[in-house]
Amino acid sequence: MRTQVGIIGAGPAGLLLSHLLHLRGISSVVLERRSRAYVEQRVRAGVLEQGTVDTLVAAGVGARLLREGMPHGGVEIRYGGAAHRLDFADLLPGRRVTVYGQQEIVKDLIAARLAAGGDLRFEVEDVAVHGLEDRPYLTFGGRRLDCEVIAGCDGFHGVSRPSIPAGVLTVFERDYPFAWLGVLAEVAPSAEELVYGLSERGFALHSMRTPALSRFYLQVAAGDRIEDWPDERVWKELRLRLETVPGFTLRTGPVIEKIVTSLRSFVAEPMQYGRLYLAGDAAHIVPPTGAKGLNLAVADVRVLTEALARFFGTGSAELLDGYSAACLERVWRAQHFSWWMTTLTHELDTDGAYERRLRRAELDYVTSSRAGATVLAENYVG
Amino acid sequence: MRTQVGIIGAGPAGLLLSHLLHLRGISSVVLERRSRAYVEQRVRAGVLEQGTVDTLVAAGVGARLLREGMPHGGVEIRYGGAAHRLDFADLLPGRRVTVYGQQEIVKDLIAARLAAGGDLRFEVEDVAVHGLEDRPYLTFGGRRLDCEVIAGCDGFHGVSRPSIPAGVLTVFERDYPFAWLGVLAEVAPSAEELVYGLSERGFALHSMRTPALSRFYLQVAAGDRIEDWPDERVWKELRLRLETVPGFTLRTGPVIEKIVTSLRSFVAEPMQYGRLYLAGDAAHIVPPTGAKGLNLAVADVRVLTEALARFFGTGSAELLDGYSAACLERVWRAQHFSWWMTTLTHELDTDGAYERRLRRAELDYVTSSRAGATVLAENYVG
Repeated sequence: MRTQVGIIGAGPAGLLLSHLLHLRGISSVVLERRSRAYVEQRVRAGVLEQGTVDTLVAAGVGARLLREGMPHGGVEIRYGGAAHRLDFADLLPGRRVTVYGQQEIVKDLIAARLAAGGDLRFEVEDVAVHGLEDRPYLTFGGRRLDCEVIAGCDGFHGVSRPSIPAGVLTVFERDYPFAWLGVLAEVAPSAEELVYGLSERGFALHSMRTPALSRFYLQVAAGDRIEDWPDERVWKELRLRLETVPGFTLRTGPVIEKIVTSLRSFVAEPMQYGRLYLAGDAAHIVPPTGAKGLNLAVADVRVLTEALARFFGTGSAELLDGYSAACLERVWRAQHFSWWMTTLTHELDTDGAYERRLRRAELDYVTSSRAGATVLAENYVG
Repeated sequence: MRTQVGIIGAGPAGLLLSHLLHLRGISSVVLERRSRAYVEQRVRAGVLEQGTVDTLVAAGVGARLLREGMPHGGVEIRYGGAAHRLDFADLLPGRRVTVYGQQEIVKDLIAARLAAGGDLRFEVEDVAVHGLEDRPYLTFGGRRLDCEVIAGCDGFHGVSRPSIPAGVLTVFERDYPFAWLGVLAEVAPSAEELVYGLSERGFALHSMRTPALSRFYLQVAAGDRIEDWPDERVWKELRLRLETVPGFTLRTGPVIEKIVTSLRSFVAEPMQYGRLYLAGDAAHIVPPTGAKGLNLAVADVRVLTEALARFFGTGSAELLDGYSAACLERVWRAQHFSWWMTTLTHELDTDGAYERRLRRAELDYVTSSRAGATVLAENYVG
């Protein structure tokens, strides 16, 4: 079996890459360890930069996104008993974000790939990477797939990155001494936009995935388990952290998913080795506070598509050789923004009185200075 | 002996307050532990915000400042082998900073006070504060000065703040694990503007006090003493940290002063107790990186002057009661900016690889995004 690009992982990165390559006349096979149903239901990111929306629309997979996605012209930050709205439309005319669940993008991409006769293989076992230096091929379930290039789109825990020989990658990472409890509830959102609730009780985020599905995040202790957070405790804590301004009432409904996520910053450099190119979470992780993970993956895929199109079209590996360098500037900008948003909005047990007042002073600045607000806004909308 | 306002300290804060009160017809006596010659030669801050210049000019003590002060329309930041200029004139039309040594302001203020018959007393011993709750008075060298109000302008190590009863003040503070070596040299500046040199060797700052007097700062280890830094080592290190871009040569000359300064962030709240009002370093300290210390002191004195004018003019203590609250917003903005500038520009032994790359990403952002550059600029010019 042979293809031009072997793609590991049928998340947004792998599926989008496969689709964009198809539009350029380049063949690919996507290998995914999980089932189609699993990846289509996996709730993860949901805040799309304009560039991400533009990419999906230009690729012909944006019809439902344009119909069902919820454009947001701002976000609200609550602290000290007051609400502060960052108005993207005012700060950055013409730029906004769109809320549309990652699992919906995955559904749209799978449908498009299958309609075009794409080769997607779910529930494949024992995927392994070989011959990266000269003749790359993949093995899975006793079969062999020869490729000219391999794209590692299999996330942080995937097999791609560990296939690179020891000593090649430099790893940069940072852990955070707290975690997020993600909650999906069958209830209409309680506000039209995202609400960041900051208090001494810790961070909370009100978000949404559809007009009937609310998404919440709570800062919890690093060791907390799902069992520590029965639904009553979740709603009580969300109320305490979000019902902090007059006139806001949290709508509650059946909780249909809870997940505890550790927060991590991680970059592996370079994002390539031999004929293997890493994209998205396989190469870098950000804490979700700034909603950058999915958008970074799409940006990587845009760069990789251009490089592969040049390679297969002209034989020139120039863009492929520069792939990692071309991606890393944006990656590090997002790393910094995500770290900043996280430390600005979360309580740390180790914070002293000075650090708390400093954070308050920074929040006051971001919500009162046009330049300060623009820094947050332009990083947020991408 | 009796006066309306007893002022402790003949630094810029105490002298300016005495002068501004005089212009409002309010009497004061200034008590200073050091000699006149000492305070007139003490080289400290030298970068004035426009508001500080405006205050001095409006008070009639700005003639020499306007003649000899050096307006700067930007600063330069060097790192990674390249120079990045932040152009205040472009980012914030009409706003700039002026370089004019603190000791020159002190000379101008002393001359103005003496010309107006002001009561300045140098080399007074054993100043002590009494009767803050109801009948305030000062004692010094066996004498007693009855006042209606006392202004504590005697700096971080002065007697004013410790005179406030235990339990009244809340203190916020943070130390930094490095120090600054300040160097004054008899040589023309090597560049027209301030140059911040950042590298893995540590922070360096090229500044000036007059057209013939250069001022340098080097990040050094926290325990370093003057003896650790003979002149040859100073110049060698300055060259390594500042001669990092083509076409720049450091001018060298006789070193006439070296001082090691620890870096500290400190705020005591409230900035008042009974009839005692603290201004400047007596109430708050910032690391010198953002050049905010002197400007904050002048801002405090502006607020205090208005409050005292209201008090003595109408008997209303309303503005005096709100003095601390009126100052603290600016104080905390400057605290945050000074902390941010310090952590952005200094190497820490405890920094891991991730932190170094994050700092580099933030520098790239500040020097490439207009919003990011404006944040630095608008905080810098005040």
